[in-house]
Amino acid sequence: MSDNNQHAMEYQRHSLAHLLGAAVMELYPDAKLTLGPAVDDGFYYDIKFNGSIGEAELASIEKKMGELLPTWTTVTHKELTKDEALAHFKGNEFKEELINEIADRNEPITLYTMGNFTDLCRGGHVDDLSTIDPDSFKLDRIAGAYWRGKETNPMLTRIYGLAFASKADLEQYIWQQEEARKRDHRKLGKELKLFTISDLVGAGLPLFQPNGVIIRKELEEYLWSLHKRKGYDRVWTPHLAKESLYITSGHAGHYMEDMFSVHGGTSKEDFYVKPMNCPHHMQIFADNQFSYRDMPVRYFEPATVYRDEKTGQLGGLTRVRSITQDDGHLFCRPSQIGQEFATIVGIIKEFYATMGMMEGYWVRLSLRGDDTSKYLGSDEVWATAEKALTDVCEAQQLPYKPAKDEAAFYGPKLDFMFKDAIGREWQLATIQCDFNLPNRFDLSYINEQGEKEQPVVIHRAISGSIERFMGVMIEHFAGAFPVWLAPVQVAILPVGEKFADYAYEIKAALETANIRVNVSVNESLGKRIRQAKTEKVPYQIVIGEKEQTSKTLTVEGRNDLKLESITIEDFIARISDEITNRTLN
Amino acid sequence: MSDNNQHAMEYQRHSLAHLLGAAVMELYPDAKLTLGPAVDDGFYYDIKFNGSIGEAELASIEKKMGELLPTWTTVTHKELTKDEALAHFKGNEFKEELINEIADRNEPITLYTMGNFTDLCRGGHVDDLSTIDPDSFKLDRIAGAYWRGKETNPMLTRIYGLAFASKADLEQYIWQQEEARKRDHRKLGKELKLFTISDLVGAGLPLFQPNGVIIRKELEEYLWSLHKRKGYDRVWTPHLAKESLYITSGHAGHYMEDMFSVHGGTSKEDFYVKPMNCPHHMQIFADNQFSYRDMPVRYFEPATVYRDEKTGQLGGLTRVRSITQDDGHLFCRPSQIGQEFATIVGIIKEFYATMGMMEGYWVRLSLRGDDTSKYLGSDEVWATAEKALTDVCEAQQLPYKPAKDEAAFYGPKLDFMFKDAIGREWQLATIQCDFNLPNRFDLSYINEQGEKEQPVVIHRAISGSIERFMGVMIEHFAGAFPVWLAPVQVAILPVGEKFADYAYEIKAALETANIRVNVSVNESLGKRIRQAKTEKVPYQIVIGEKEQTSKTLTVEGRNDLKLESITIEDFIARISDEITNRTLN
Repeated sequence: MSDNNQHAMEYQRHSLAHLLGAAVMELYPDAKLTLGPAVDDGFYYDIKFNGSIGEAELASIEKKMGELLPTWTTVTHKELTKDEALAHFKGNEFKEELINEIADRNEPITLYTMGNFTDLCRGGHVDDLSTIDPDSFKLDRIAGAYWRGKETNPMLTRIYGLAFASKADLEQYIWQQEEARKRDHRKLGKELKLFTISDLVGAGLPLFQPNGVIIRKELEEYLWSLHKRKGYDRVWTPHLAKESLYITSGHAGHYMEDMFSVHGGTSKEDFYVKPMNCPHHMQIFADNQFSYRDMPVRYFEPATVYRDEKTGQLGGLTRVRSITQDDGHLFCRPSQIGQEFATIVGIIKEFYATMGMMEGYWVRLSLRGDDTSKYLGSDEVWATAEKALTDVCEAQQLPYKPAKDEAAFYGPKLDFMFKDAIGREWQLATIQCDFNLPNRFDLSYINEQGEKEQPVVIHRAISGSIERFMGVMIEHFAGAFPVWLAPVQVAILPVGEKFADYAYEIKAALETANIRVNVSVNESLGKRIRQAKTEKVPYQIVIGEKEQTSKTLTVEGRNDLKLESITIEDFIARISDEITNRTLN
Repeated sequence: MSDNNQHAMEYQRHSLAHLLGAAVMELYPDAKLTLGPAVDDGFYYDIKFNGSIGEAELASIEKKMGELLPTWTTVTHKELTKDEALAHFKGNEFKEELINEIADRNEPITLYTMGNFTDLCRGGHVDDLSTIDPDSFKLDRIAGAYWRGKETNPMLTRIYGLAFASKADLEQYIWQQEEARKRDHRKLGKELKLFTISDLVGAGLPLFQPNGVIIRKELEEYLWSLHKRKGYDRVWTPHLAKESLYITSGHAGHYMEDMFSVHGGTSKEDFYVKPMNCPHHMQIFADNQFSYRDMPVRYFEPATVYRDEKTGQLGGLTRVRSITQDDGHLFCRPSQIGQEFATIVGIIKEFYATMGMMEGYWVRLSLRGDDTSKYLGSDEVWATAEKALTDVCEAQQLPYKPAKDEAAFYGPKLDFMFKDAIGREWQLATIQCDFNLPNRFDLSYINEQGEKEQPVVIHRAISGSIERFMGVMIEHFAGAFPVWLAPVQVAILPVGEKFADYAYEIKAALETANIRVNVSVNESLGKRIRQAKTEKVPYQIVIGEKEQTSKTLTVEGRNDLKLESITIEDFIARISDEITNRTLN
């Protein structure tokens, strides 16, 4: 959505909040309106009813809104004195409170009128509500809300409405919400036994069950394989460091709130849990004296960092305190920035193509603003870097949007937005130039003339954080992971005990080919088939008399796939191929 | 060495300290003796010289000891009053201080006489020093030492002597010390670029360079492969946990000093860095409701835990604060303890055979003592477990020593001691029964009758800690790792620039076969060959006219190995075989 369209939608949603207020006042004349803003997916109005209403009442309010809508063809406003305004809203203590506050701030007190409804308002409306498609909005739900969010204030009734540019957009949104609920990774994570949140361990610190670790490890190994062949080396750094590291890096000044401080029980020394890996990686580079021939130097480390957040904001895998980054830092000469960015863009494209997320993705190219005093690094290096990044975007035909003034103070960057299977957008991969850390850590390599030169650092993360990425992937695939990621790839279901031996024979053959197999014998066949489908196992093999005699398999897969009389060898070849190529379903 | 022999050696070393004191007094009559005890590898005497002596003087002192030795055929002792003793040592303020203290404690003041030398002493000597082989001991070195270790006290001269049961033992020890110095993993770790200690990050928190990570990962993957095929599952747990986890586990009461406490910057919540993985793994088990059919449940996690130690005690990889355990916990029925121990013993044997450390290893079987009130768990479970462990030791023909009263309060255990290439003994692997944690975490599985039953937990670690184990391995192999562990497996050295292309062709072929290769072109060939040998690269391939024309290789390896006119395919087959089988050099 363009910025202009965004603005127009906000006005429309704000106007619909007024319409909701008007409809409520028509139907419940003794209700008191309080505040009614636009929100991301529509609008709401907080109302003090005389008594209470339930969701059953929403239909009639919505009907009333539909009746009023065609008559709201104009918007007018006028400015009132405090006394006039107080007189107008006499008896509504909420509006009175607002009016007094506006007056105290010496701001104009304005009233907006649409149709025959007038409300205290700062403005921001569409000119003619009658142009709005009545099917493009919908009252959604009711919730309780304290007046101005404060627990000691009166409880109000909040009526939520959804509003979009068109009926189709509204329907898409409702479908997306419904799908998101079905795919909720917290629910699926429990059902598929992927991870656990333990009260004893703490919020935001998920523990991964065996099934979840299989996915983590597959993602991590895939990411490492993509980097290894591009000349990256693995490093390993501890999770703690002294404050001195963060004083040198500059995090001690700016990042303290997000950091966990650590205190030794015996040594009484003070440390921090690392909130990122960059400072540690700078120290590994610094321990070598590289020559220009060694550059670029590329480090990769899938490492868990810890950042503090308020407990209330934590949930599932997407808001966590333990963040395993597929982190990497590379050290290069300014002239090498373009080539290195191109390589990383290649890795990102390959990775997200494998995940089936390349449709509708886009890239933000964040550049320096006009006030160059806000930024570190010479004009020359900025010019080189920004040109290199722009050239990469062009050469790789990235759908990119230059964003002036959006660069970090330490360098320009590329951020990648990908859409999941139900159309939600996620900011995931990032590549960033850094002219700051090499300076703070006084890093150098020896150039052709035998002199010290400062390298540029490039930060990059492909999945961003394994935890958050797994949360996104669980919902993207609705738990039905492609074969290479599926914790159990094949379920073998003998129709009865007498075929168990043959089932285990097949299991052994598949396991020799590194395929993850589960045999279940107990319970009825129907129950076991349902179980395998609930667990979203990609392939089910039912073993009966026919299969045992013919030494072949009957295989059922997703999308109504049925393979009959396939030999074990052929099935192994087929599934191995899917695993090796990381085929999508 | 048996306990008796140990005792005898201590007496002998103590007697030799007296002999040293006597020799010094003969040669330096105005020196003042202070304290002279036995130590692990010999003895020392702290002496106040009138002036100073250097190591050059040790030869004449040792010669004098040799002269006195045959005359020290008897030991006599007598008890003195405080005044008598003070009179005897008049003018030696150190002995006076000791005498006053002994008197203050109301202990007997005894003097021991051997030959014509008498010293203040509590006793503990051999009866006849003339039986000691004069070649079985040796003055070793001189060091400064404050009187009684206190910085504000006078500085004394400490003369160290080495003493063993025989000349051969002494020579073996001297060789071992010399070898250990050459193999020091801190020195090799730097030379081979395996790891780095950063002042900014902190002591005891090593950072692993790419070469070190290759070894870490190879060890970790090998360990995981040994477990995977025995039915273990990988889990992953965060490095932080709330105090509640350690209150439940009981660590909060006993282990606080070793733990790092953590404080959130925003949430203000309090956590600990995990000092072990057990409590986390209990929570993963507890999140499932397993049936007897699922037992045993086996978890494996190579995870880094953090334990605080005083900064002064930290060094290299063997004394660290970041400890990556190849950790695992399994949950089984009491009847399954024997089978599970047997499986783990099998893994340990295979792993240490691969490392070439099975010669001279032994196992301590720690059993419950007579005072059963000190232990948790029923008599029946203890009996089952102790019998199971003893049976495993017998069935697997382990060289084991039962150690009564050495069990942990929570269960019996097996500890494995292995000798490295220069004969030093290291306690490495451990397998422990635990009747405590399942109880504290109220763990259960459903038995055949549908009732809850408590499992037994087995802790096991094969390498113990990857950091310490790597430290031991660097010294065990003196940096010349077997091919599968070597960071660079093959060095390709073209004799000149014109053969570089062919060298890179060979590199590509080897890398396709997953062999770690380095090509170096710059510098003289001689220098590059020396470099490869310093880096202890297992194979060097020199590429010249002959090799390029004949498309064959000349390969030099360790132990004077030379392969001439070998094809690339044959060389790949040979080295791949060594890697797959993890062949020792």
